[in-house]
Formats: sequence, structure tokens, C-alpha cells
Amino acid sequence: MTVWITRRPDAEVAAELEGSQGPLAGVRLAVKDNVDVAGLPTTAACPEFAYQPSQDAAAVAALRAAGAVIVGKTNLDQFATGLVGTRSPYGAVPDSRRPDYISGGSSSGSAVAVATGEADIAIGTDTAGSGRVPAGLQGIVGIKPTLGVVSTDGVVPACESYDCVTIFAADLGLANRAMGVMAAGASGRQWPADVRLAAPPSPVVAIPYELPELDRDWRAAFDAAVGKLSDAGARIVTVDFAPFLAAAKLLYDGALVSERYAAVGEFIDAHPDAALDPTVRRIISSARDIPAHRLVQDRREVERLRTVAMAALDGVDALVVPTAPMHPRIDEVAADPVGVNSRMGTYTNFCNLFDMCGVAVPAGTVGPAQFGITVLARAFEDAVAVDVAALVSGDEAPVDVWPLAVADSVELVVFGAHLRAGALVHQLTDLGARWAGELTTAPRYRMSVLPTVPAKPAVTRVPDSDKGVSLLGHRWLLSPAALGRFLAALPAPMQLGKVEFDDGTWRTAFGCDGAAATGPDISSYGSWPAAIAAGAV
Amino acid sequence: MTVWITRRPDAEVAAELEGSQGPLAGVRLAVKDNVDVAGLPTTAACPEFAYQPSQDAAAVAALRAAGAVIVGKTNLDQFATGLVGTRSPYGAVPDSRRPDYISGGSSSGSAVAVATGEADIAIGTDTAGSGRVPAGLQGIVGIKPTLGVVSTDGVVPACESYDCVTIFAADLGLANRAMGVMAAGASGRQWPADVRLAAPPSPVVAIPYELPELDRDWRAAFDAAVGKLSDAGARIVTVDFAPFLAAAKLLYDGALVSERYAAVGEFIDAHPDAALDPTVRRIISSARDIPAHRLVQDRREVERLRTVAMAALDGVDALVVPTAPMHPRIDEVAADPVGVNSRMGTYTNFCNLFDMCGVAVPAGTVGPAQFGITVLARAFEDAVAVDVAALVSGDEAPVDVWPLAVADSVELVVFGAHLRAGALVHQLTDLGARWAGELTTAPRYRMSVLPTVPAKPAVTRVPDSDKGVSLLGHRWLLSPAALGRFLAALPAPMQLGKVEFDDGTWRTAFGCDGAAATGPDISSYGSWPAAIAAGAV
Repeated sequence: MTVWITRRPDAEVAAELEGSQGPLAGVRLAVKDNVDVAGLPTTAACPEFAYQPSQDAAAVAALRAAGAVIVGKTNLDQFATGLVGTRSPYGAVPDSRRPDYISGGSSSGSAVAVATGEADIAIGTDTAGSGRVPAGLQGIVGIKPTLGVVSTDGVVPACESYDCVTIFAADLGLANRAMGVMAAGASGRQWPADVRLAAPPSPVVAIPYELPELDRDWRAAFDAAVGKLSDAGARIVTVDFAPFLAAAKLLYDGALVSERYAAVGEFIDAHPDAALDPTVRRIISSARDIPAHRLVQDRREVERLRTVAMAALDGVDALVVPTAPMHPRIDEVAADPVGVNSRMGTYTNFCNLFDMCGVAVPAGTVGPAQFGITVLARAFEDAVAVDVAALVSGDEAPVDVWPLAVADSVELVVFGAHLRAGALVHQLTDLGARWAGELTTAPRYRMSVLPTVPAKPAVTRVPDSDKGVSLLGHRWLLSPAALGRFLAALPAPMQLGKVEFDDGTWRTAFGCDGAAATGPDISSYGSWPAAIAAGAV
Repeated sequence: MTVWITRRPDAEVAAELEGSQGPLAGVRLAVKDNVDVAGLPTTAACPEFAYQPSQDAAAVAALRAAGAVIVGKTNLDQFATGLVGTRSPYGAVPDSRRPDYISGGSSSGSAVAVATGEADIAIGTDTAGSGRVPAGLQGIVGIKPTLGVVSTDGVVPACESYDCVTIFAADLGLANRAMGVMAAGASGRQWPADVRLAAPPSPVVAIPYELPELDRDWRAAFDAAVGKLSDAGARIVTVDFAPFLAAAKLLYDGALVSERYAAVGEFIDAHPDAALDPTVRRIISSARDIPAHRLVQDRREVERLRTVAMAALDGVDALVVPTAPMHPRIDEVAADPVGVNSRMGTYTNFCNLFDMCGVAVPAGTVGPAQFGITVLARAFEDAVAVDVAALVSGDEAPVDVWPLAVADSVELVVFGAHLRAGALVHQLTDLGARWAGELTTAPRYRMSVLPTVPAKPAVTRVPDSDKGVSLLGHRWLLSPAALGRFLAALPAPMQLGKVEFDDGTWRTAFGCDGAAATGPDISSYGSWPAAIAAGAV
């Protein structure tokens, strides 16, 4: 069995599962073997490279602290260099369903462990697509967060500027929960104060104008996934994929690969007899003599392409692509290890270079093969990617989308035109606000109708001597900047301040200039929609 | 005369000045000759490199559009490589006051043109300190903004990742105005939604624990500048300067110099007979064979040092250093061109590597020499740097600090405890809010006293049938996120919404839950301070 490089004894795992506590209690975790787990060797799939870490990588520590229990360390394309899952002296990791086929990599063992049910979640890493390609081929979910939001402390670098820690799980809900725990506990790059926390109700989704390298039989599956998005309310637009492909080529074919030499090149040079995958050795060693000025030029070219690509995505919420273009057999990879690997990265390689985040989700099967798509979004728009991915996978979009666990957010409770189905709700959703449920005020308020267009309710507190009612509100979570911008644009007589709720909390909510609250009293209906339904507005 | 490489005919300049219009009408502008001006050659101080740009650099275009008139293109250390002002085939640019001394560089001609009054403002560039060192030696102001906020389109790259366009002027007010125009018109990197727009009233200012290389006679001048800050209310703390110095060394002594080869190395190799400064040629040519993996390692080391340095500045608003450590003679530089140049960058080289911004201001004289200090702040805290610099230079801190011209800001009008001298004003200044003047409401309001601690006014609009008064308010400008956070923390019964002002505008301002506005009416005093002064609160 080539999925695991190190596996903890079953009894040990079972005992820990028994006693595990926290939000991830009972969740079995597999860890890619380029990520440190205290007490287990880290090999990066090179036995001679192995070392014994004294502490968990930050990402591992966060998941463990939340109750996840480590099953073992998983096989990978050596030094996380590859997208195939065959480049390991511990053996090629076969597809979980069809053993003649590749698993995809480099996080091969992690993805297969989840696909076979040997683990509930798994940590992967992703530079060129290693957290997405194997998810696609194994029919599971892979979340690749924005670069740097999860610390890479305790991770063997592959191409350090572009390395990410990722999560695999069988469904989006669990993957999302695990990402939240991992991101909150292993935090890195600061989230912007105006981050969007949700996709808009009708997102604009771009797809490539052409689909190079895509398996002919997979085209219909991709079209079906796009159709599902469209049916769910997304507006589909096409985008020129050329700048994305051009950047993808730079990741391995240019000077960026010198980062791989910086990571493990000296080790490779110093260990000519180590069990190195010949392709991995060739890729890394050949980067030794690339001059620095070429790296400068290639980085400049990446930036130029990124500018072009991001301009093409202006006004677009997410880019949807096939996760992998095909599912090759192991012997096909053996016959052309570099060529096949390169084609496998067609829809993934550019992502980290362009500072995008992504969510890979299953999108049906084609014959015996799993088909998957990846939803890509701009840096920090991880919540947007999760929401759009849920439209494809058929999962419920999680209320507690994972960036909420770590990005700074504030809340606003609304009573009228900004309710989820209200006439002005776009003012909130355009700012990336996320709906977070209903709640009811303390019985200390009254509601009257303002003579505005559209009509709005005035919610005002009754004097202590008077009797008020409880009113229904909707809770939104939004970035601090979104709340500031919303307030700055809010017209008189609306005001925002603290309102008392029936759970005893005071929350930021809509109020109103008292002098304007002279319209018909509709308090008795208990909510704005009820008053409308009754014809009182 | 070595200040100018190209100078426009006086009559042409005079005619344009006569007809100039806009916020910079009548302002004479000198442009460093590595920045494009349509119709004038760009030489970068290398005649063989010269080309004829067909359009202005973005920064130049912005200043011209605002009415500034170009006097000419100024001499520089060739390819902006140096801090001395002597590395040019067009001749060394001497100090404006003592011709045996260096001007400082690389923006030598630009700084001297302003110091002698031949120009009112000048564009410089800054990678290692070229927009600060010559300002210090010439007794003028140099503003080096955060990396990337002014586009470098149309600028000959020196070390592209760290190149900045800068402004010189004789005083902080004009430099600030010109920066605002340039940044707004040549925008680049996005400003964060939670940017601080002012230094707090009592800023925490760090100074290096030791002052390496500082001219012995300048020590007292530095201490005097720090004393002035302290007298102005700053709290002075010391910081370990070691990580800053270590990064400074990496800029020239490590692999980062390969960026200079990427910029002009091929030109230099292809033109062995070009009029190249021998030191510049040596620096750039020797970078040709640096391997890329060393650049990767050095960048990683810069990041590591930056993390250490920023941690050391935690809780600190600004770092104040001498701009240059000494003022050498031209013959001293000739005797040791690399050594002296390197020492000149002691207090500047690290800045751009650490993504800091800076303002260099005069801080008195020591004998015949000008002494200057530089106020450094974190990326995007350019307004903080300007405010602290004003405390040293004795300039009034500009109300319209330049980031307001380009960063997204919103306003909030306050009436009570958040007035400039109010008990709760720290709630705004801690969020980086900037005071922006007084204004008066329309005569449609009343003010009463709330039974809060501290006491606060309730400002409420009177019903249309009633007679109200005009009330005095203070206007604050703050980031959208700051307003959102302020609202999220605001306790009942305060509310924020639109209030009508006597100029007919409606602005976001303090209101109050009407049910709470039952305290004593103090409207007749016209303002909260007047009511307090009268003993009515």
C-alpha cells in the first residue's frame, strides 16, 4: 500500500479518537509527508532527506487542538514536485478506484486516503495544483486558500513564494470547517479590512473561451457543470485564457524553478546516491545555474500577465475551470513523465502565481472517471469561491464560511428593505455581506412606516414607561470597511446604532431619526414582511 | 553647470508658467533624468542609453495636468545607482552651498535644483535612499511614498521591486501638495481600507538604540530633533537597529543587485564603449552571474529581517533616523567610491526592502552643514510620517495630508465627547481619523444631555413644525474600516446617520435614539463646549 509513508498504530488512533474533544472531535486527519507532525518523521518522499520534527507544523497543531486525530503521513510526489502521484521512491499512488490510473499529485496519498475513507480530512500542499488535481481525480473536495493566510511554518518548501497548505475532505461542509480551524490557528498574511464574505446572489462566473488539453469526453461534463451554475442564477461570461496559460508555462519552464533549487537543491547535490525520482532530480538540479536576472525578468513577466488576467476578470466574481484536463494511466505518465505532468497543470499552474484562491469540487462522473471543476477567485475572496463551488457541487453554502473564522468582520441587523429578500438588499450583498440568520429584538421597540421610496420601516425604542414589541430582524456579517461604506451611503432618516435583542445582547442594527418616525404604526405585525403581507404597508 | 542634463529654454518655461492653471499653477518642476518627459530625451545619465519618450511618465503627466511646468531634466548617479551624486558622465553635482562637497544622490540634480530655487518641486526616484539622502544634505524636504502607490510607468528601472517615485520641495506643505497630485494621477497599488490617515496626538516614536556611522558633530543635532519631538508630545522609545542594518547590507552586497543587471545589464554588456561610470559598471556587471537560487535565499532573508524589524516596531507609530550619517567631500568619495556610498545608506537602504515609507525633513544646521532627519513609517502610513515630520520641521501638519487625495476615506461629524479636545476623542484617533475642521448644522436640531458617563449630548432633529438651532460640529476623515469599527463599538443610545448642515449638505454624523433624548435641553448654547463652559452640563 503506497498511500502512507508512516501510519500510526490503529489502536493508538482509536484511543485518541475516543477521547478527542473540540469542533473536530472524532475527525481522522491524514498529513502529507512534507508537513511536520511531532514524533513522526518528515520525509518529503525522500528517505535520505527524512528528519524527526520536534513540533507540529502550525497548520497541524491547529487541527489537532480542535480535536482532529492524526492517522499518519501520506505519500507524495517527491519534494511536492509533480501533479501525477507517481514520482516517489515509496511507490506510485494509484487511483482509489482504478489501480492502473494515477491518483494525481503531488498530494497523492492525502487525496486517496480521503477518497477511500481511511481519513476524514487530509492536509495537502499546493504550488502548481497539488491540492486540487488529486481532489479532482479522486472525486473529493480540495480547498486551496489564498497564499499566506495559513502559515507554512513546518512545511518543507517546494517553491516557497507560491506554496500553500490545503485541505481535502469528501464534502464541502467538512472541508470548510477544517479550513476555518486551520486558518484561525495557523494565521499568516493579514486579511484586508474590506474582504468580501460571500458571493453575490447572482455571481458573474467566467469560463475559458477555449478549453485546451481537455479530454474530449469531459467536455460535456464541464458544460453540464456550467449549466448548473447558470441554472442556479450565475451569469456566465467567457474570458481569454491565453495570459493564464502563459503564466502556467512559466512555473516550470522558466526561472521560477530556481526556488525549488533554493529549497532542496543543496541536499540533492550533496546526496548523489539518495533515492531520488529521476524526473524530480532533473528538474531541480537543472535549476542550479539559472542566473538571478532571469528570475527577475520572469517574475516581472508573471506580474505583467497577472495584470492582464486580472483586468480580464474585472467585474467577474469567479473563474471556473476543469480541475484536471484528463485522467491518465500510470504507464502513460511513465512514458512521458514531463509532458503528461505539464498538461495536467493546464488549469492549475497559474493560480498561485496570480495570487488566486480556489475550491476544487466533484462535478459528476464520465464513465468510470471522476470529473471535477475548480472555482477560482481573487486573493482573499475565498468565501466567494466556496459559495460558487457549492452551486456546482450541490452542497449547501456553509453559513459559517471559513474566512469568518479569521478575517475581521462586524455585524448589522436589518428590519426592512435590507432583509434577505428586500428591495435594497443588493446594497449589502454588493459589499460582500453574508446572511447569518434571523433574530428577534427585545420587546422594547415599535415599528412605523416611513414615507420613503421604497417604503422602509422606522424601528425606534419605546420610552421606558411604554410597552413595546419584539421585531424580526436579519443578521448580516460584513467587513468593517463594508459597514463603514454602507453607513456613509445611508440616507436620512435611517440611523445605525445598538438595538437590544431578546437574548439580552445589544447589536448594531437599524434605527431611525425619531423626528421622522411619525408614520402609521405597524408594530403589531412583528415584522416588516408580515406587515407587507397584511397590506399594512 | 552639472545640475541639468536637459534644460528647456527660459522663454518657453516662462510662457508656460504664465498660462498655467490648476492646483499647481506657477509651480516649476524639475524631473530626474531617469523619468520620461515627452519631447525631452531620457538619459539615466548615460548618453548612449538615451531615448526620446513619446509620452510623459504617469507621475510627470499628473503634475503637468495640475499646472506644474517642467524646467528640465536633472543629473543623477548613473542608472540611479548611488547615493553620492558624483557618478555621472555629465559631471558630479556639487552641494548647493559648498562646492567641494557632494550633493547626495542619486537624485542629485533634482535636490540641488530645489535647494538653489531653480525649481519649486522636483521628481526624484528612491531605491536605496535617493529621494532622501540628497534632501537631507541639501536642507530640503523629500517625500518617499509607500512602494507602488505611485506608478513607475515611464521610469527607467534601477532595482525594480524596490523603486519609488519621490518629490522634493523646500517645505513640507508644497511637497505634500505635489505628492497628493502625483499619487492621485499616477495611481498604482491599492490603499488598504483601514489605512490610518493621521498620527495620533501623542505618537510613539522609535529611535535607534545606537547610531552607527553618524558624524560625531551631528549627534547633538539628532538629539535636538528628538527633543523637539518629545516636547511636541511624542513618546520616545529605542529600538534595536541590527535587523535594519542587516537588511541595508543586502541591498548592494547580496543577490538583490541582480535586479540592476536585469534592468540595464544587457545594455551595458552590449556597449563596452559607452560613457559608463566605472563604479556603476562594476556593480551592475558583477551581478550578471549571480545564481537565481541565491536571489531566492536573499529575498527570504529580507523577509525574515522584515518580520523581526516590524515586530520590534510593534506599537510604534514612526521610526526617526538621521537622513544621512555625514556629508562627505567630493574627493573623499573619489578616494573610496563604494565605501563612502555604502555608509551614506546606513539609515536609508533598508526602507524600501521593508516596505516602509518616509519623509526627510531639515532639522537644523551643524556649522555650515545641513542636518536632516527622516521619519519612517509602515507601508501606507504615509500620513503618519508626514504628521511626525511636521513636528520636527516646525511646519504645520497639513490638513489635506496627501494620502487623502487617493486613499478611500469617509467622514464623520461629531458634536460632543469626540470633538477634538473631547474625552472620547481617542476612540477616533486610535483608528487613524484625521481632524478636518469645524462646521455647523442647519437650524433644524436640538441638543440635550444624556445621563451617560462621560456625559454626552443627544443631537436630534426637531419635527418640521418646531424651531431648531444650528449646532457646532467637528469633521473627521477616516478609513471606511475605521468608521465600521467605530460604529460596531458604539454603545446605545448613540446612533450614526445623516445630519443636515448649513451649507445644505447631509453628512454622516452623530444622532441619538429618540427615546433617550429626554435630558436637559442645552440647544441654546449652540455647542457642547459652550454648554460645558456655561456650567449647563
